[in-house]
Amino acid sequence: MNEFELIARYFAYPAPSARVGVGDDCAVFDSRLGHEWAVSTDMLVEGRHFVAGADPESLGHKTLAVNLSDLAACGAKPRFALLALALPEVEEAWLAGFSRGFLGLAAAHDVDLIGGDTTRGPRNCCVTVLGEVPAGEALLRRGAKVGDEVWVSGCLGDAALGLAALQGRIELAAPARDQVLERLHRPTPRVALGLALRSVAHAAIDISDGFLADLRHLLVASGLSAEVLWEALPRSLAQRSCANEILARDCVLAGGDDYELCFTAPPSMHGDIAALSQRLGLPLSRVGLLRAGSAGEVAVLDREGRTIEVERFGFDHFAGK
Amino acid sequence: MNEFELIARYFAYPAPSARVGVGDDCAVFDSRLGHEWAVSTDMLVEGRHFVAGADPESLGHKTLAVNLSDLAACGAKPRFALLALALPEVEEAWLAGFSRGFLGLAAAHDVDLIGGDTTRGPRNCCVTVLGEVPAGEALLRRGAKVGDEVWVSGCLGDAALGLAALQGRIELAAPARDQVLERLHRPTPRVALGLALRSVAHAAIDISDGFLADLRHLLVASGLSAEVLWEALPRSLAQRSCANEILARDCVLAGGDDYELCFTAPPSMHGDIAALSQRLGLPLSRVGLLRAGSAGEVAVLDREGRTIEVERFGFDHFAGK
Repeated sequence: MNEFELIARYFAYPAPSARVGVGDDCAVFDSRLGHEWAVSTDMLVEGRHFVAGADPESLGHKTLAVNLSDLAACGAKPRFALLALALPEVEEAWLAGFSRGFLGLAAAHDVDLIGGDTTRGPRNCCVTVLGEVPAGEALLRRGAKVGDEVWVSGCLGDAALGLAALQGRIELAAPARDQVLERLHRPTPRVALGLALRSVAHAAIDISDGFLADLRHLLVASGLSAEVLWEALPRSLAQRSCANEILARDCVLAGGDDYELCFTAPPSMHGDIAALSQRLGLPLSRVGLLRAGSAGEVAVLDREGRTIEVERFGFDHFAGK
Repeated sequence: MNEFELIARYFAYPAPSARVGVGDDCAVFDSRLGHEWAVSTDMLVEGRHFVAGADPESLGHKTLAVNLSDLAACGAKPRFALLALALPEVEEAWLAGFSRGFLGLAAAHDVDLIGGDTTRGPRNCCVTVLGEVPAGEALLRRGAKVGDEVWVSGCLGDAALGLAALQGRIELAAPARDQVLERLHRPTPRVALGLALRSVAHAAIDISDGFLADLRHLLVASGLSAEVLWEALPRSLAQRSCANEILARDCVLAGGDDYELCFTAPPSMHGDIAALSQRLGLPLSRVGLLRAGSAGEVAVLDREGRTIEVERFGFDHFAGK
């Protein structure tokens, strides 16, 4: 099978929303009046973001999911994706699984795969996504205001706990282990939440590097500091029953790969946020408060209001170099 | 230096044309009325598209150039780029050179770098470019018509000859060697030509896999066949003086990485094409003719009209697997 047969077999995908999809030098698409485009790119590397031998279907899902999560954080409606893929060899079973996972999630969000590239090389999956947002309404990191409350969706730290289980740093009972591994391997991009937050939130970011690291990005962009209440951080049962408390705390505060949304909103929005949580069937937890002060500073407080010492904020691909 | 300092130092770049550039979950940009977007992505892998130890400044240039070439083939005006980079380690000298080459070419074409990703991993440079084209005017592979003539810009085969010299498959005198290596390492995307071809050409493609392979893509998309005249193919002095005629012929016919444009136009366009060549200071050579018949069939003819046997059409990353 050559490069072009490979594309035709696994990635030629009808692109009803684009004028030109896969198979030309460029894909071509038009714009709707009054809308802007949001675009993001994320690269997943074998041995770094996923292990050699990772289930290809889950990997295909995750490769697109982490990109859709960026669109969700901006409140953009996903429209198009491009997929560049380096593969050490053509393995049809791998390609079939990967494209099933990727295209399955794409279909669930009405995303058209409109272009890409394939080449031989160390396994690397690089996706670019494009989404639409009404002009001027994109949610940004820099929109937060003093007095805003900090919210997070879902639960924190499960993906990192799953990774710790995979790496043998913690033993988990079967149901907890399955649950956190599912969260690690098949994250759910919070697309519907992101769209709804346009009329609710002042600022948003997705949690990919670690809750504290990503909150800090938002704070730096907005020029603010924050207090976070440890007890308020949403934790799954797997998390709460974890035997290693220090590890569990690190997963919740600094574990990456959750792909939940962290957003800030004024207290007047409580009712809207509760209604939104109900409508989406997704827990939304108020976990902290924004203050003036040193931009990017985060204090994590226990139930007595004492500061909890935090060892690290999140993941950094080039830390220590 | 961590991941975020790295981005700030080497890739934080003013993006005057975008509403939001580098530094948020997504970049955000608007659309001009009556225009469509063309988008393309290309991945360059160490050991595959460039050698370990390749000059970083040239590599930065080439990484963007091969993507701009795709926009040129569609007649789109380059506007934005996203850069995803996997690096085995943070080497400041490498990053400084790479970003100089990349951003230098970006500035020359008024392209704003609006987003990207950095991660540790085997060296891999993946770029996505976005360009604007008046609605309905994108040049496509599928627009060619019976009776169109086939044209190519510049010279063919120099990049492949440069690669052959690098790999020790051919000895070249210094000036010829320098010239073809420059073509291999710092290709010139034919952006101005692509824009002008919108009112001249029926179909276009850029020559990245090899002249015959890319012409065949165009023919398959248009449902046509072609006759190409060997003597008409534009060859540099380095090419014509090459001691190994078989190698030189293969470079011209099947060598990739030239990033010239191949386009088709009706004979009535001769005057316009001559004027365009003059205006751009770029040779445009008429090299063949389109016919009905088996889609994708290409006959290469010598000056007596006899078919020349061709060993291969171009490069395929997964050939033979």
